[in-house]
Amino acid sequence: MKLNFNSIKDIIPNYRLYLSKKISIKGWVKHFRSNCFIIISDGSTIKNLQIYVDKHNWVFKKINIGVSLEVIGVVVFSKGKKQIIEIYANKINIYGNFNPEDLQKTILQPKEHSLKKLREQAYLRFRTTIFSSIMRIRHNLSFSIHKFFYKKNIYYINTPIITTYDTEGAGDMFRVTNNDFFGASTYLTVSGQLQGEAAASGLGKIYTFGPTFRAEKSNTFRHLSEFWMIEPEMSFYELNNIMSLAEEFLKFIIKYVIKHCYEDLCFLEKNVKKNIFKILYSILDFPFEKISYTNAIKILKFSKNVKFIYPVNWGADLQSEHEKFLSEHYFNNRPIIIFNYPLKIKPFYMRLNNDNKTVAAMDIIFPYIGEIIGGSQREERYNVLLKRMIESNLDTKSLWWYLNIRRFGSVPHSGFGLGFERLIQFITNISNIKDVIPFPRYQNHALF
Amino acid sequence: MKLNFNSIKDIIPNYRLYLSKKISIKGWVKHFRSNCFIIISDGSTIKNLQIYVDKHNWVFKKINIGVSLEVIGVVVFSKGKKQIIEIYANKINIYGNFNPEDLQKTILQPKEHSLKKLREQAYLRFRTTIFSSIMRIRHNLSFSIHKFFYKKNIYYINTPIITTYDTEGAGDMFRVTNNDFFGASTYLTVSGQLQGEAAASGLGKIYTFGPTFRAEKSNTFRHLSEFWMIEPEMSFYELNNIMSLAEEFLKFIIKYVIKHCYEDLCFLEKNVKKNIFKILYSILDFPFEKISYTNAIKILKFSKNVKFIYPVNWGADLQSEHEKFLSEHYFNNRPIIIFNYPLKIKPFYMRLNNDNKTVAAMDIIFPYIGEIIGGSQREERYNVLLKRMIESNLDTKSLWWYLNIRRFGSVPHSGFGLGFERLIQFITNISNIKDVIPFPRYQNHALF
Repeated sequence: MKLNFNSIKDIIPNYRLYLSKKISIKGWVKHFRSNCFIIISDGSTIKNLQIYVDKHNWVFKKINIGVSLEVIGVVVFSKGKKQIIEIYANKINIYGNFNPEDLQKTILQPKEHSLKKLREQAYLRFRTTIFSSIMRIRHNLSFSIHKFFYKKNIYYINTPIITTYDTEGAGDMFRVTNNDFFGASTYLTVSGQLQGEAAASGLGKIYTFGPTFRAEKSNTFRHLSEFWMIEPEMSFYELNNIMSLAEEFLKFIIKYVIKHCYEDLCFLEKNVKKNIFKILYSILDFPFEKISYTNAIKILKFSKNVKFIYPVNWGADLQSEHEKFLSEHYFNNRPIIIFNYPLKIKPFYMRLNNDNKTVAAMDIIFPYIGEIIGGSQREERYNVLLKRMIESNLDTKSLWWYLNIRRFGSVPHSGFGLGFERLIQFITNISNIKDVIPFPRYQNHALF
Repeated sequence: MKLNFNSIKDIIPNYRLYLSKKISIKGWVKHFRSNCFIIISDGSTIKNLQIYVDKHNWVFKKINIGVSLEVIGVVVFSKGKKQIIEIYANKINIYGNFNPEDLQKTILQPKEHSLKKLREQAYLRFRTTIFSSIMRIRHNLSFSIHKFFYKKNIYYINTPIITTYDTEGAGDMFRVTNNDFFGASTYLTVSGQLQGEAAASGLGKIYTFGPTFRAEKSNTFRHLSEFWMIEPEMSFYELNNIMSLAEEFLKFIIKYVIKHCYEDLCFLEKNVKKNIFKILYSILDFPFEKISYTNAIKILKFSKNVKFIYPVNWGADLQSEHEKFLSEHYFNNRPIIIFNYPLKIKPFYMRLNNDNKTVAAMDIIFPYIGEIIGGSQREERYNVLLKRMIESNLDTKSLWWYLNIRRFGSVPHSGFGLGFERLIQFITNISNIKDVIPFPRYQNHALF
C-alpha cells in the first residue's frame, strides 16, 4: 500500500515539483507564528514547515506545542522571508492532543533547556532540534563508516558481546550471569580486537562496529559504561599502513558528514560553539604530522615558555597537556600521529620493535579533543607474544586460541580502535558524551 | 605510505590492467597442483590465485598448506582451464611457516570437515572456503540493510544493551552485575523496540541493528543466546504500510546479495544445497500473499488431504506445520503475510483492532524456513495500552516513559523485527544458525 504522506526532507529541496499540489504532512507542532501559522517538524530534517491556517479555525483553540497532526493542504510560495514555501491548509487531523498543563512537565515547552535537563527526559529529547540534529549526524557518521570500509572490501564482522576474558588484562568489567548458563564466568566485552585478529587471519581485512563496555566509575564528560567502537584489523598491514588507513578514514567520514549534515552542523555552529567548521577543516586541510614518542619527549623537554603539571620523562605516558601542547602549539593546530611508544606503557599485543624498548603503537591526537584513535601493529611472533603475555601476568591458557593464530600461518597485521561517541563529540562539539548517544549508561544510570 | 600489495578480488576481474606487470600478493597456501603450482587465497574473494613456481625451487620443501606468504611475480595468461591468469613467481617470502605435524591438529588440512568440526576451531574457520563465503555474504547483507534504510531517510539508532526491564514480560534474560553499579537490577536487552518507539516519536523513522540476548536453554538449529536484530520503527505508518516496507526491504536485500555475492552463493549452491537461487528468486518474483489470521484458520480447517499434529483452532498460535502448509502448499511456495492475530497470543504493545479480539500484528512466512519477520502497528492510545499492560501483569511503573510517549503528541506507528542470523540462514541455506555468526554463544558455549 502506497504511503499517503510526504516528508519535509523530501519536499523542501524539491518544492518545485510540489508547488500548487495538494500534499499531506504528518508531524509535531514546534511553535506558532503571528496568529495564523503553525510550524511543524517531522524529524526527517532540521527544517520545519510553515502551515497557514485561517486564524478563526477551530484548531487553534485545540492544539498546543507538541501535538501531533496531519496537515492536508496545498504547497504555495511563502510571503515570509524565513522560508520559500508554506502549506495552505485545507484540513487538519489531530492524532495526539494533550493538556497544556501537562506540557509544563516536559521538555517540549518552548523555552531553552540545558542538555542536562533534556537528558532527564531522554525518551522525549528526540523531538528537540538540538538532539535530533545530533542523532542525524550520528546516523550519517555510522553510514559513512560502513561505506568507507565497504568500498575497500574490508569486511564487517560482529564480534561477541559476551566473552570469557578481559582484553586489557584489567578489571572494571560487567559480569553476565544466569545460573551458570555458559559453564564459565562471562563478562561484557571491552573490545572486539582479539576476535577481530582471528577473523582477519582468514578474511584478510575486517572491521567491527559494535557496543563495548566498561564498568569504570568515572562520571566524566568523556566516559560511558556502554559505548560503540569501530575496530578495523588488517592482515599484512604494518604500522605505517595502518596510520595511512586511519588518516584516510577520518578524512573520509568528516568530509562525508560536512556534505550530508551541513544544515545540522550549521545549527550547532550557531547554537553550541562557533568554530565547528573551522575545527573540521583543520583535519581535512593538511597531512597528519607524524612524530615518534621519543622525538615528542625531546620537543616537550626542550620547549621553553611552557610549564607542564606532569613531568616529562621518557617511559612515562603522555598526558593530555602534553598532547595538547604538541598538536595545538608545536604543530599549530594540526592532527598528529605519535608512534613507537615505550613497551611498558602499552598492552601486550603490540609488536615489539627492534630496539626492544618500544612497540609499534600509534595514537592519533586531534587539536582541542586529544586522542581520537589508538592503534598498533600486532605482535605476530609466537614466542615474543608468549613472553610478553607472561610478563604481563596474563592467563595464557584462556587465550590459547589467540596464541594459536601465531602458530598456523601467522601474518604481520595491524589495527586501530575508535570510540564512536568520542568521534561524534568531536564533530558536534557537544561537551558531554552523554548527549551524543540515545540512552546513555553510566554509574547509577540505566533508565529508559 | 602506499600499500605495496594487491588483493585477489581486485586483480581477477581487472586482469587486463595487470597482464605482464609485476605485482605482490599476500595470502595463505590453500593447496598445491601438479608439482609446480601453489594455489593461494587472501580472503578477499572466494577465488584463489594460481602461482607458478619452478618445481626445484626451495620453497616447495619448506611450505605446506596454511603457510602465509608473499608472492612477487608477473601476471601471465594461464595455460590451465581453471583460470584465466596466473602469477609467474620471481620471489616468495614466507611469513608464517609451521610444522606439517601441527597441521593435523587444525581444520586447515585439505580434507572435508563438517561444519560442526569447523565450529570447534571457530578462530581458524575464517580461512575455510565455506565459512569465509558465509562471512562475505553476511557482510554484504549488513551493508545492504544500512543502505536500504539510508536511502529512505530512516535513521540508525543504537538502543541500549544494558536495560532495567524485559521487553516481552517474560524471563530468560541475562543479568548484568558489577557491585550494584547502576543502582538497579540490569539485564541484557531482548529488543530495542521500546526505545526505538521513543526515537521514532521525534525523528519520525528509525531503525536499530544491534545485538540482542536470550538466556533460553534451547540448543536448536535456530537459537542463539546472542544474535543481531534489525528493528525499524516508523511514525505515521499503519499496519498496511509496515507490511509494504517489510516486503520492499526483503526484496531489496535479497536482490543486493544475489548481485554482490554471486560467486559465494554459487559455491554454496554447489556444495551445500542445490536450490539456493530457486529459493531466492521465489521471494523476488511475486508480490507477497496477504491473508488474515482468521482466513488462514478457515483454510487450514477446511483443507482436506492433510493431517496436522497440532489442532487448528481460532485463538491458538499457528504452528510451523500450519505456516508451512499455507506458504508451500496452499500458496504454492510463495512468501505470505498473515495479519490480525488474536489479542491473547500477541504482546501487549500491539494495537487492538476494532473487533476487540484481534491486534494489528503481521508475520511474514517464507517457504522452507517459516517466520522471518514479525511486526505490528503499535498501540498508540494511552488508555488502551495501560489496560493491556495491566492485563498482561506488566510493571507499568518501570515503563512510565513508554506510556508517556502516548501522552505527549502520540502518533500511529508501526515496526517489525528481523533476526539477522535467521536471515543469513535463509539466504545461505546453512542449516545450523551457529555457522552463520563468527563466534556463536549458546548454552555452555562462550569460547573464543
